[in-house]
Amino acid sequence: MSRSQRRDLDALLRSAPKAPDATVAEARASFAQMFNAPAPDGVTVRDATLGGRPALELDPGGQAGDRVLLYLHGGGYVVGSPRTHAALAGELVRRTRTRLVSLDYRLAPEHPFPAAVEDGLAAYRELLQRSAHPDDIALAGDSAGGGLAIATLLAARDEGLPMPAAAVVFSPWTDLTLTGASMESKHGIDPIFVRSDIEEYRRHYLGQQDPSAPTASPALADLTGLPPLLIQAGSNELLLDDAIRLAARAGSDDVDVTLQILGGLPHVFQHQSGFVDEAGQALDDAARFLAQAHDAARAER
Amino acid sequence: MSRSQRRDLDALLRSAPKAPDATVAEARASFAQMFNAPAPDGVTVRDATLGGRPALELDPGGQAGDRVLLYLHGGGYVVGSPRTHAALAGELVRRTRTRLVSLDYRLAPEHPFPAAVEDGLAAYRELLQRSAHPDDIALAGDSAGGGLAIATLLAARDEGLPMPAAAVVFSPWTDLTLTGASMESKHGIDPIFVRSDIEEYRRHYLGQQDPSAPTASPALADLTGLPPLLIQAGSNELLLDDAIRLAARAGSDDVDVTLQILGGLPHVFQHQSGFVDEAGQALDDAARFLAQAHDAARAER
Repeated sequence: MSRSQRRDLDALLRSAPKAPDATVAEARASFAQMFNAPAPDGVTVRDATLGGRPALELDPGGQAGDRVLLYLHGGGYVVGSPRTHAALAGELVRRTRTRLVSLDYRLAPEHPFPAAVEDGLAAYRELLQRSAHPDDIALAGDSAGGGLAIATLLAARDEGLPMPAAAVVFSPWTDLTLTGASMESKHGIDPIFVRSDIEEYRRHYLGQQDPSAPTASPALADLTGLPPLLIQAGSNELLLDDAIRLAARAGSDDVDVTLQILGGLPHVFQHQSGFVDEAGQALDDAARFLAQAHDAARAER
Repeated sequence: MSRSQRRDLDALLRSAPKAPDATVAEARASFAQMFNAPAPDGVTVRDATLGGRPALELDPGGQAGDRVLLYLHGGGYVVGSPRTHAALAGELVRRTRTRLVSLDYRLAPEHPFPAAVEDGLAAYRELLQRSAHPDDIALAGDSAGGGLAIATLLAARDEGLPMPAAAVVFSPWTDLTLTGASMESKHGIDPIFVRSDIEEYRRHYLGQQDPSAPTASPALADLTGLPPLLIQAGSNELLLDDAIRLAARAGSDDVDVTLQILGGLPHVFQHQSGFVDEAGQALDDAARFLAQAHDAARAER
């Protein structure tokens, strides 16, 4: 690991131009331009559909088995797409040797809460129908997509659906009441976000709806019955406490949970796997976690 | 992993005789009888001294390198010894192929706080003198010994000593103010402890001293500058929140930290590595974490 890489990344992000008054269309275009890296070499990308929504399917090539990873991209429920997260999702595919479907769930403000959760649930339901066993499936996501992955599990559990083998979430946004202590304590330390950015995403996604609804704020929900969770976050995040409190709540509710916090790293540092050693190691850890969880779930059958 | 093993262990522990009115001498004898398993085959155990205290040195045999693990046993600062923890420490030795020194630090009530911390610091100081590099050293401990491992790091940091490569703590007791929510929420769920057991240990260790002193309650302390931490706990623990809040505080203070919570498992479930698959896997995870931390620290030299 390298402290100097962490500092360099922080400086880079801090110097990036911010556009707090951008329209939704401008924010989407800017996000798509910033996150335009393709999937890594050897990972095949093709258009697909899942649960009635468009999707990208990423394939590691010949050795892929029956397992499949449902990926839910970040972007505050407002921006981003499977294309903006093809590089990150592709790194998971490369490391897990697992097929991945990245869902183009409906975005706000055109489609507010709970549209994204409905899409996540429909996608998971179709994967269940396609798979021989629920434990062949795992969920992953980052930022809002990480919160959405947990929300999807809650919605599935509440419908009586079987749980997948595991879920992995990177810097998940899990508290839309915005009450985490890090919302204040990491102000100015987070090189990407200020509170008003997050409030703006919430306004688009929730409108006047209750931010404490379980599938909007899973860190505040009863998580009993969820499969093993891996939660990763950087310490330089307004959303750090979203990760911590999700882990605390999961553990208290008897869920097997692993929380990894990397000091001095920003929101969804896993995007930087070519630039910061810790990002690659975190993705390696995620791949190992998924392999163990699939094996353990299979052994319990 | 096996849910049935977890249930069997819970039933076994729940059926164990409790002796809340035992004297300190009786409690020590009973603890020594309960935890009398030897180190695993292939691990050599010999008497040693470290920092002016007796110790047990555990050696994995020919392939051991320059690395050394300082182990601090559990027992509420009142009971236990390197002998009672030879099996658990030996499992770490076997998995890490690393020499380990288990310190017979002074116990309360004869030697109240901060005697144990002084002994931990003296032991670490001597290991620093013996070692070519601080990053050849790591600390580990369970329960009170887990809290003591963190307290020792704080004391060393505050004296300006270099940090070791990492620390691994199992179900650490890190809040002697006993304010964790799990002290209430896991009452009756914890198969080993009730609150009065923990109050009794605290009374012996602290007497009338301030329970919020940083080296008594490291979960409440500023943890800035500590090395990477791995924290493991079971969800069926009064002390679950001691693990969670230590991780939260460490992460907030920019320490690299991994928290693993295993659902349905008790305090220091790692003792049960022959009985519960998760215990062996947790020890494997600890060994991998230590290897990575040593390598990363060496790369930063």
